[in-house]
Amino acid sequence: MAERATIGTYDATVVAEIDTNRRRIDDALASLCHRDLSSLDNCAPDVAAAIRYSLLGGGKRFRGILFLAAYRAAGGIADATDLAAAIEIVHAYSLVHDDLPCMDNDDLRRGRPTAHRVFGARTATVAGVTMVPLAARTAARAAATLPGANATRVVQELMSAAGAGGMIGGQMLDLEGEAKPLALAELELIHRGKTGALVSVAALLGGVAAGASEAAIGALAKYGADLGLAFQIADDVLDVTGTSEALGKTAGRDAALRKSTYPSLLGLEAAQRRAEALVADGCAALDRVGLLTPVLESIAHFVVRRSS
Amino acid sequence: MAERATIGTYDATVVAEIDTNRRRIDDALASLCHRDLSSLDNCAPDVAAAIRYSLLGGGKRFRGILFLAAYRAAGGIADATDLAAAIEIVHAYSLVHDDLPCMDNDDLRRGRPTAHRVFGARTATVAGVTMVPLAARTAARAAATLPGANATRVVQELMSAAGAGGMIGGQMLDLEGEAKPLALAELELIHRGKTGALVSVAALLGGVAAGASEAAIGALAKYGADLGLAFQIADDVLDVTGTSEALGKTAGRDAALRKSTYPSLLGLEAAQRRAEALVADGCAALDRVGLLTPVLESIAHFVVRRSS
Repeated sequence: MAERATIGTYDATVVAEIDTNRRRIDDALASLCHRDLSSLDNCAPDVAAAIRYSLLGGGKRFRGILFLAAYRAAGGIADATDLAAAIEIVHAYSLVHDDLPCMDNDDLRRGRPTAHRVFGARTATVAGVTMVPLAARTAARAAATLPGANATRVVQELMSAAGAGGMIGGQMLDLEGEAKPLALAELELIHRGKTGALVSVAALLGGVAAGASEAAIGALAKYGADLGLAFQIADDVLDVTGTSEALGKTAGRDAALRKSTYPSLLGLEAAQRRAEALVADGCAALDRVGLLTPVLESIAHFVVRRSS
Repeated sequence: MAERATIGTYDATVVAEIDTNRRRIDDALASLCHRDLSSLDNCAPDVAAAIRYSLLGGGKRFRGILFLAAYRAAGGIADATDLAAAIEIVHAYSLVHDDLPCMDNDDLRRGRPTAHRVFGARTATVAGVTMVPLAARTAARAAATLPGANATRVVQELMSAAGAGGMIGGQMLDLEGEAKPLALAELELIHRGKTGALVSVAALLGGVAAGASEAAIGALAKYGADLGLAFQIADDVLDVTGTSEALGKTAGRDAALRKSTYPSLLGLEAAQRRAEALVADGCAALDRVGLLTPVLESIAHFVVRRSS
């Protein structure tokens, strides 16, 4: 697997599939904003505008793309784009709340001012909290249309990652960790919660939505958890090596805040190697159950090779 | 119906059933806090404590009790207490966020300091937003166990009421309305969103969870919407006639804030009559489809006769 992980170019078919899925997810998010925010447009136009700003402002759609690739790999044949969109709504909510003045207090996200800088903290808070039930509704509606899917499990897994069983714990540990030096194990716990929980569940949901076996679902969850941690290590690395312009968010923040990161604890090269080893591990787990498709392999490489 | 609505005493069997259901809902909330907050206890103990404080601090459990009565009336025979608990989690989340400094900035709730007074605004905000996915998970898990239930619709309806399709719009209109005099129609729109959406969905979900006909579900939704508006009018009346001690929250706040209310627009007696007429209307809608059980009738009377 280590050799495969060094491949730097991607197959054209794979790139085309990923690009198509990204566009489909963007379209699905636009449609559901049109459909599901109409009553909010009348009652609370600022909140509706902040939700649109946060959902429709681009982004890699990494989690949605990962879900769709896992769904295909696990044998799913229906159009699962709306469920990918639901996962992206959870991600977008977490960004809005992470950036709030009472949390990370950040100014720049995806190359634009953060939601609270545009709409104010109250509207951004309410917009974020409104996106969680929007994600749950969207996931329930989408899962109900997928043959073989365990629809209630889809909702439970996504909402567990979005809440007490996932992102929230990681985010709060992260905020507390800013004030003190962390050991590597503590940092890993934070990263596994803050980023890993949703990335892992995106891959896992591919299996649950396709009605796959528990062995397949378990391998997808392991692959997703490894990718999620590698993704966050790559984020730490990019915070050192990237520019604000390329990242679309403030670079060099970790060092300015003297935050413990993988590069600060291990050095840049060892951090990069750790990310690559994780990704290779995750791919090996998928390979063992026969689910390592070219798309899932390319996504894994992207995680450690991306520049933004 | 007008005559029935003036009955001031309740049948002992009905009172016993309601009390039993209230205790069951309290027990279910305690169990799920024990089960679903364990990982949060490790990562973010303050947030977990704030969630417990908000979920386990008593309360009338009106929405959960209403749901259970509607479920029975619609023919449901399984134990649906966990779904009642999910509805109460949504209600508790809305109270935590309504009380925040950036919203109503209130100090007292259910006879105790509000969550942000005890835990601070950041922790209370995060606790509130964590309760939404907790409610969605709980609803999905519970609905999956109920024979005949349309489980994905249960999640969609509850999350619609919790978000863009319900409470959020009402709350934001309410905040804007504080600054200006409102017409009765505007006030009704606010109340129907802020309180009515969740009360209505509690009744409606009784039908959906029991696999009832669309006619039955529609009648339950109408009854719930009428009770929800009557409940909020009664709240306005109690803000004038009640004490902080009896209410468990600050009395006289509406007048202090010069908020438009049903009593301020119609006078106390006419407001009370409007609440009673709504409740009679809702009961009549249920009666027409044969769903007006003694418990649902008693709950309707309680809405306009309660002292807290």
